[in-house]
Amino acid sequence: MTYLSILGFVAAALTTAAFIPQAVKTIRTGSAEDLSLATFSMLLAGTLCWFAYGYGIGDVPLMAANGITASLAAVIFAIKVQAVLRKQG
Amino acid sequence: MTYLSILGFVAAALTTAAFIPQAVKTIRTGSAEDLSLATFSMLLAGTLCWFAYGYGIGDVPLMAANGITASLAAVIFAIKVQAVLRKQG
Repeated sequence: MTYLSILGFVAAALTTAAFIPQAVKTIRTGSAEDLSLATFSMLLAGTLCWFAYGYGIGDVPLMAANGITASLAAVIFAIKVQAVLRKQG
Repeated sequence: MTYLSILGFVAAALTTAAFIPQAVKTIRTGSAEDLSLATFSMLLAGTLCWFAYGYGIGDVPLMAANGITASLAAVIFAIKVQAVLRKQG
């Protein structure tokens, strides 16, 4: 394994796992006021597109990384939408 | 341009631009209570690793996309650190 492939692996692990703490915090506090609905909508849509692209080129690691991030983004997105609807309700 | 490369381009554009609304919102409100410091630290470190990896393999689009996301993550991270320090101060 070269230094470069280790660097790529670390980059993938960090950006994939990055949203775990935010999902945990948002679930625990139920508070999403400071989160941007646009950001998590775009992140959800973007990671789903990467997942489909990974499927299209047969790249399993790309599918796995974006599948994880999309699931985390979906959780945060859902709580944010709930908060917005409650505020309008 | 195939449908697949269009999908890849859309995925890259969405995940790169995704943090613009969050950066704008965090700058405008100065409020970062609901943001996870761990998430934005990992995101900043991860995108910087991707930037270095892109440099290593000579992939300019990978460098550009992650350079933009790292800058946005850095802005959000800085405001969050400021808020945490102010709270402890």
